[in-house]
Amino acid sequence: MPFSFDVLRASRETKARIGVLHTAHGDFETPIFMPVGTQATVKTLDPRETMEVSDGLILGNTYHLWLQPGEAIVKAHGGIRGFMNWPGGLLTDSGGYQVFSLSKIRKIKEEGVEFRHHLSGEKLFMTPEDSIRVQNDLGADIIMSFDECPPFDATYDYMKKSVERTIRWAARGKAAHARQDEQALFGIVQGGPHRDLRESCAAELQKIGFPGYAIGGLAIGESKDEMYAVLAYMDDILPKDKPRYLMGVGSPDDLILGAMNGVDMFDCVLPTRIARHGTAMTSEGKVVIKNKEYETDMGPLDPDCDCHVCKTYTRSYLRHLFKADEILGLRLITYHNLAFLKKLMHAIRTAIKEDRLVAFKDAFFARYYH
Amino acid sequence: MPFSFDVLRASRETKARIGVLHTAHGDFETPIFMPVGTQATVKTLDPRETMEVSDGLILGNTYHLWLQPGEAIVKAHGGIRGFMNWPGGLLTDSGGYQVFSLSKIRKIKEEGVEFRHHLSGEKLFMTPEDSIRVQNDLGADIIMSFDECPPFDATYDYMKKSVERTIRWAARGKAAHARQDEQALFGIVQGGPHRDLRESCAAELQKIGFPGYAIGGLAIGESKDEMYAVLAYMDDILPKDKPRYLMGVGSPDDLILGAMNGVDMFDCVLPTRIARHGTAMTSEGKVVIKNKEYETDMGPLDPDCDCHVCKTYTRSYLRHLFKADEILGLRLITYHNLAFLKKLMHAIRTAIKEDRLVAFKDAFFARYYH
Repeated sequence: MPFSFDVLRASRETKARIGVLHTAHGDFETPIFMPVGTQATVKTLDPRETMEVSDGLILGNTYHLWLQPGEAIVKAHGGIRGFMNWPGGLLTDSGGYQVFSLSKIRKIKEEGVEFRHHLSGEKLFMTPEDSIRVQNDLGADIIMSFDECPPFDATYDYMKKSVERTIRWAARGKAAHARQDEQALFGIVQGGPHRDLRESCAAELQKIGFPGYAIGGLAIGESKDEMYAVLAYMDDILPKDKPRYLMGVGSPDDLILGAMNGVDMFDCVLPTRIARHGTAMTSEGKVVIKNKEYETDMGPLDPDCDCHVCKTYTRSYLRHLFKADEILGLRLITYHNLAFLKKLMHAIRTAIKEDRLVAFKDAFFARYYH
Repeated sequence: MPFSFDVLRASRETKARIGVLHTAHGDFETPIFMPVGTQATVKTLDPRETMEVSDGLILGNTYHLWLQPGEAIVKAHGGIRGFMNWPGGLLTDSGGYQVFSLSKIRKIKEEGVEFRHHLSGEKLFMTPEDSIRVQNDLGADIIMSFDECPPFDATYDYMKKSVERTIRWAARGKAAHARQDEQALFGIVQGGPHRDLRESCAAELQKIGFPGYAIGGLAIGESKDEMYAVLAYMDDILPKDKPRYLMGVGSPDDLILGAMNGVDMFDCVLPTRIARHGTAMTSEGKVVIKNKEYETDMGPLDPDCDCHVCKTYTRSYLRHLFKADEILGLRLITYHNLAFLKKLMHAIRTAIKEDRLVAFKDAFFARYYH
């Protein structure tokens, strides 16, 4: 098994820690942000650019690739890495979240989930075994258990039954995992806002045994207070020596506060999605590049950034590209936003190492959120 | 004046020639194909990529940049080159063609053309002096006279009056040209299918005197036979020692046959436009990448091509990108198509030098057009 995780240093002032994920396709220092390459491409970028603006570990979506082009075609290329020509590390989700979030018509059974294709309406069925089999074919270094992700405000009774099923599904997934020597399968802790359910879920998953644990069911529409109320105790519930992955989180505040709560891994479409709508993350907060104020602005997108986009283009040119509906605009803001988060994660890691993460957080928040 | 043109070699078997355009931003061997960067970007590509897949000389569109973001903003960046960060050579058209092709409501007067904005409907007016002033601000190495481009099948009487006006406009443009020492202003020969009008236009333009001449009013919807009937005598009409630029031509057959008729410069949106619709130019003809037959095709887009896309990706992956509506697909086919034309132009120049252009043409046509 080429996968392992080491905690190199624990923060003295917060629950944050510095770790390293060892994989067959690179070692990755944590806390790490993973850009999302849903359909075997980080939207608008090619792999050379993605490598420049990431720490070398990205995410692919099982649901999308299962439906298009299908896992057999991806497998024939040697997995997603060969398909998209990605030389770095890779994680796939289980498809579970998309089954629940994209498909409006679905029926959850013990066996799996029956649902309609989110575009064609075709009737489909996915089991935990299907998800693992597809992820075996997609060939990521880290793969995820098939779970149910109920709404944060589901009833306690529903959540309890759902968590119990998610645990059974996790065990079935592990049993079905055909590439245990090559791919690290993570468990996912559900339980919504209920500490007892989160605790029992984490405990049961540890009995099954996984090399890493995700915190699921957050960043799905609940308030920030509700999310942090859960994150506040997850460090106590999860084993110290395994990586923790907070799924779907990618705003600067959540990355910093997530790291302070002991999270090691993050992913989110936010930086790439808002980029395609012309919103940049900068050291002084968000910049909506289409705004009239940037029409004649000869400065860089972010004066504190040394990425290729900020070293090369003016805000005036970037605004022009968006006003003129030019695809290059989507590319350049996407590139910058990921470079911004890469730099932010590096700064978070440095602050943990130097035991000044709280001061870093205060300074960052004061500048980014004014 | 940093611009000059040398004919290095004349073909022994056709009217083709090898030349070199000397500009302040590079020397460019001819015959050359110039990719079109309408709005200060070759669509989907960044300047690094554009440099890789061109011979270093590209085109910008005056009409579009005049309207968005306006020439003052481009000028503040040091012209289009600074605005888009393009280190190579640049040519701008006059805007005349767009005034006539994009705007449905227009009124041609001796002074200039009154027309409606093709999107907003705003009433606008452009004179030959305006066109040159805007092109002075856009700062290209080669700029074009403001001409009228009538339909190929306009009446002889209309065409005659139009050509006479185009000549007067060319003289006014030259008189208005404020950067004669930095930008080479070309004349444009109109006259539709009428040899006498083409001859008188070329003769009058030469009396005014320009460092290069474009062949206008072709590739605007007339048949190939009609176009080649005109091209057949243009070599006799135009001076040997000045570059000839066939505007709007970019299909492989027309590039080869154009070169054989003594043309030195070409531009066209064809390779980039069809790329965005998923059509690739390959050594064996067009490939419509969305077709089912490529779903599991593990081969490169063009087995004879050594561009980055063909060395890196399979047809199966490229098809997936288009099926999944991923912007990277538009980028990769655009990149390949321009690389294909770059290689084609290099092959044409080599064949001219080795006096085997006719044999090259026959072999290329047999393979590309089956």
